[in-house]
Amino acid sequence: MTMRFSTVGLMGRESDPQVAQMVGSLVNLLVRAGAQVLVDAALGISAEAPARSLPKAAVAAQADLILVVGGDGTLLKAARATAERPVPLVGVNLGRLGFLADITPERLEADIAAILNGDYSREERLLLDSCLIRGTETLTCTPALNDVVVQKSDGGRLIEFETHVDGQFVCAHRADGIIVATPTGSTAYALSGGGPILHPAMDAITLVPICPHTLGDRPIVVAGSSRIEILLNHTHGGRAQVTWDGQQTQPLAVGERVQVQRSARRISFIHPRGYDYYKILRSKLHWGRPKHAPRDRGK
Amino acid sequence: MTMRFSTVGLMGRESDPQVAQMVGSLVNLLVRAGAQVLVDAALGISAEAPARSLPKAAVAAQADLILVVGGDGTLLKAARATAERPVPLVGVNLGRLGFLADITPERLEADIAAILNGDYSREERLLLDSCLIRGTETLTCTPALNDVVVQKSDGGRLIEFETHVDGQFVCAHRADGIIVATPTGSTAYALSGGGPILHPAMDAITLVPICPHTLGDRPIVVAGSSRIEILLNHTHGGRAQVTWDGQQTQPLAVGERVQVQRSARRISFIHPRGYDYYKILRSKLHWGRPKHAPRDRGK
Amino acid sequence: MTMRFSTVGLMGRESDPQVAQMVGSLVNLLVRAGAQVLVDAALGISAEAPARSLPKAAVAAQADLILVVGGDGTLLKAARATAERPVPLVGVNLGRLGFLADITPERLEADIAAILNGDYSREERLLLDSCLIRGTETLTCTPALNDVVVQKSDGGRLIEFETHVDGQFVCAHRADGIIVATPTGSTAYALSGGGPILHPAMDAITLVPICPHTLGDRPIVVAGSSRIEILLNHTHGGRAQVTWDGQQTQPLAVGERVQVQRSARRISFIHPRGYDYYKILRSKLHWGRPKHAPRDRGK
Amino acid sequence: MTMRFSTVGLMGRESDPQVAQMVGSLVNLLVRAGAQVLVDAALGISAEAPARSLPKAAVAAQADLILVVGGDGTLLKAARATAERPVPLVGVNLGRLGFLADITPERLEADIAAILNGDYSREERLLLDSCLIRGTETLTCTPALNDVVVQKSDGGRLIEFETHVDGQFVCAHRADGIIVATPTGSTAYALSGGGPILHPAMDAITLVPICPHTLGDRPIVVAGSSRIEILLNHTHGGRAQVTWDGQQTQPLAVGERVQVQRSARRISFIHPRGYDYYKILRSKLHWGRPKHAPRDRGK
Repeated sequence: MTMRFSTVGLMGRESDPQVAQMVGSLVNLLVRAGAQVLVDAALGISAEAPARSLPKAAVAAQADLILVVGGDGTLLKAARATAERPVPLVGVNLGRLGFLADITPERLEADIAAILNGDYSREERLLLDSCLIRGTETLTCTPALNDVVVQKSDGGRLIEFETHVDGQFVCAHRADGIIVATPTGSTAYALSGGGPILHPAMDAITLVPICPHTLGDRPIVVAGSSRIEILLNHTHGGRAQVTWDGQQTQPLAVGERVQVQRSARRISFIHPRGYDYYKILRSKLHWGRPKHAPRDRGK
Repeated sequence: MTMRFSTVGLMGRESDPQVAQMVGSLVNLLVRAGAQVLVDAALGISAEAPARSLPKAAVAAQADLILVVGGDGTLLKAARATAERPVPLVGVNLGRLGFLADITPERLEADIAAILNGDYSREERLLLDSCLIRGTETLTCTPALNDVVVQKSDGGRLIEFETHVDGQFVCAHRADGIIVATPTGSTAYALSGGGPILHPAMDAITLVPICPHTLGDRPIVVAGSSRIEILLNHTHGGRAQVTWDGQQTQPLAVGERVQVQRSARRISFIHPRGYDYYKILRSKLHWGRPKHAPRDRGK
Repeated sequence: MTMRFSTVGLMGRESDPQVAQMVGSLVNLLVRAGAQVLVDAALGISAEAPARSLPKAAVAAQADLILVVGGDGTLLKAARATAERPVPLVGVNLGRLGFLADITPERLEADIAAILNGDYSREERLLLDSCLIRGTETLTCTPALNDVVVQKSDGGRLIEFETHVDGQFVCAHRADGIIVATPTGSTAYALSGGGPILHPAMDAITLVPICPHTLGDRPIVVAGSSRIEILLNHTHGGRAQVTWDGQQTQPLAVGERVQVQRSARRISFIHPRGYDYYKILRSKLHWGRPKHAPRDRGK
Repeated sequence: MTMRFSTVGLMGRESDPQVAQMVGSLVNLLVRAGAQVLVDAALGISAEAPARSLPKAAVAAQADLILVVGGDGTLLKAARATAERPVPLVGVNLGRLGFLADITPERLEADIAAILNGDYSREERLLLDSCLIRGTETLTCTPALNDVVVQKSDGGRLIEFETHVDGQFVCAHRADGIIVATPTGSTAYALSGGGPILHPAMDAITLVPICPHTLGDRPIVVAGSSRIEILLNHTHGGRAQVTWDGQQTQPLAVGERVQVQRSARRISFIHPRGYDYYKILRSKLHWGRPKHAPRDRGK
């Protein structure tokens, strides 16, 4: 099941000296380990042979593993850049644990060595495909690993829109907007909006209204196979937009629709052996440890 | 795919004259339609031949369709009574739409006639099996269609407990309790506790902490195949209990565990053709209708 | 305590034929009742003598009572227009009960007659004064009856800002924004954002973060006398703005501050005798009526 | 304004060796500082002359300052014990910061010395008086510093009750219960139930429904002078109870009422100079520090 990786790409947060330094160390580490190393040219690092500096698209096309240095936002960006031909991604943080960027600098050398040796956990994450439609014309299509968000774009008054799932009318919302999130995105913006946490292995999508006018307009979870459509009805003189993964944005006009459905592709993450999703949740959400655990639990 | 029903059982809310009267009408209706009619004796109705009055268990064992008159609570009770050999259930309300009891008195005659003629929608709902364990001893096992709730039972101080999913430690909670809900139960108590709405076709279970001390202790949704365990750690001198579907209750002592997992059986509901889950949501949760729908939607 | 009103102004939602018609009827009603009638020229109604059509500012300056026809938004606009010299306002709705626009068309004639005869309830509502400050320069100052909202203005990423109350640092927020609301505004946008309902007689202000990144970042209520300051720290490449009552907007740049405090002026509302705030809440928020009230309550 | 304290009482969490040890140190510290020292006999410490061990009531009656060692719950208990003749209280924690117990062991000696020298902040907290009424008979009356809670007491089904404020009917609730909280209590159970944070200097009371059936049944804040009444209507075959400060409990029967209003007395807390309520909030609720504060804030 596990595979070894021979061509390793490196991506990271751009214009960040700390990232550049860490990528530099990773190049050395990987070269010593015998890997072919491809560095995203956008990082602006002079990769010396045998490492090569290539455009991001070429790294995405040729690597069979990509290490990404930065935070969860950087991972999202890399996932979007590699969505066409999903390559396994490894997230390396800069000292602050991320939901996706789970390798910490202290463990970096050991974890990377183990991963290159085939000692790792691999998991697949649901990816969304999403299009903006005007009438019968498709204006834009783009993938999203976290979320597709329709919302007011001028901070002004609420917008009115309808949601449809699998062709069935669900609700006419009056709200700041709505977040359509994958399990991966459920701990990002959707959580701030009051949505539930979806375990990342779930084949599910959640729809989380943002500041809904109607108090009964609550988050809903539907099957991953659902075809979701959001139709903008009214903006009260304001404007609206659709945003994918918080990174790509397009204005949305009254009468236009956003369609969202599960992609046939998935994003793979490689974690060090012993990866524990709940442990990351506990750390990120300040969950407690047991205080009064009985000694003998009968197990 | 559709089947015709020849032996029809009748259950309902007990000691309720309005229910008794409606069941009486249904007996006549069903007999005229040529069905064998079995009436739950607990209803206290003198069923005249050819209808027969039988103990609830016998109705559950012999009927191939059961009409249930009352509210969602009555449906839950019938589902629990028939869980051993799931028979399709039809919910008839007394004028107030339920999530499960969706046939209204005005439509009763027409809807039942259509259903008997094989003109209906059938859907399957996830059922939980749940046991209370002390050490290595299993004290009680019972099914639940809505939820399994562990909570403080004397209205006093919070309780401390741990959740585990598939053997992995999830969280040490300090709260009034926790609701483990099916999609069916997600619009009941779990919704009051801040949980998400799960579409009833989903194979998923949600864990909703009740008044958690830690604000980051949020509802989580896991796959329907998950094995969930709740271990009671501490009660601060108070008491705790486990409740199944709000109908069956057992005290829970420190060190005891509640295990919950999806049952191999499922509950079938029969709805009139055209059943629309979202329409019921809209009605029950006061969701709005579109106010400013553009006339030409480009569809 | 009660006073009679001799000069009555009329304002309303502009460019709305239904409003124009209702204002026309009100003119006749008021003239017959012997009042001097001043109609806001912005309504575009040809007020015949003895009624006069005047600019909004002149109506605000001369009337000793102003009837406002429309919804809560129209009332807000009238309150802002009259904030300099608060004149008592009466809200007339078009059939849909508002929090502020509480006179319904069916009761219109009787209620207005009673009010003109001095038979009414009067209540005062807290008004905010709020300024946008750059360095030592005050850029804009404007009143707000509902709320002052600082939020991202391009629908993109969250913004970072600090709140200070009476010179004390409260919290560094990462959120979509924050709503500073009066009791009047507590049932508007702030409620959608998860804020509490403040009884309108309270001398209090609530700060409600919008979609905060930190789950412990919860709504807070401070004394009406508090001096509140919001300092914009970072926009992650996006933009931010401040909005007063959802009606006036100004861009907000990093390093700029919004100051909010209770105004020395207050807004007066005139209600028909028997006005019941909780009754309006019950109607607007779908609160229930008692189902199982015991007959003898020992009162 | 400030006063010096000559007779100092000591209370604390009972049956806790760590507390006993800390109280022992405090006795020595206080005796050395020339104070008369009265130790609550319930602590079981052999106080040697010149310190004296006395019943709790005597300590409450004679001390002009009381140091309380433990957590917030211990402080609550001391506040209840001294409510008849409010003596200023000082909260000493055991290493974990409390909302009320804000002196940490490391700062203990210095803080107590400063307080004895008259170098401190004093603040007054609103106290509730609350009675349980059956018909015309008053069954129990007791003070509450945090909250008065009416809730189901057997973990079973929801209860139905009405709230009235100043004689006006507010809402018919179907819920697990309701929390009537002071500003002090707003960061305790009420916060877990979704209530707002009320600044402790506010003269206000919040009513927070627990797991309400109706999603629009939201927390409400009323003036501190409000007379609040909760009438139990129905328990669906279960039981209900009223709990004061989580420490005193009484069963509540259908038809009985709980009345709550602000006490004429107030509780005084003494804090070390520089006490900062918001700093405690930030620490307890995991609020962030500014990440991107602009250097020049124009102040």
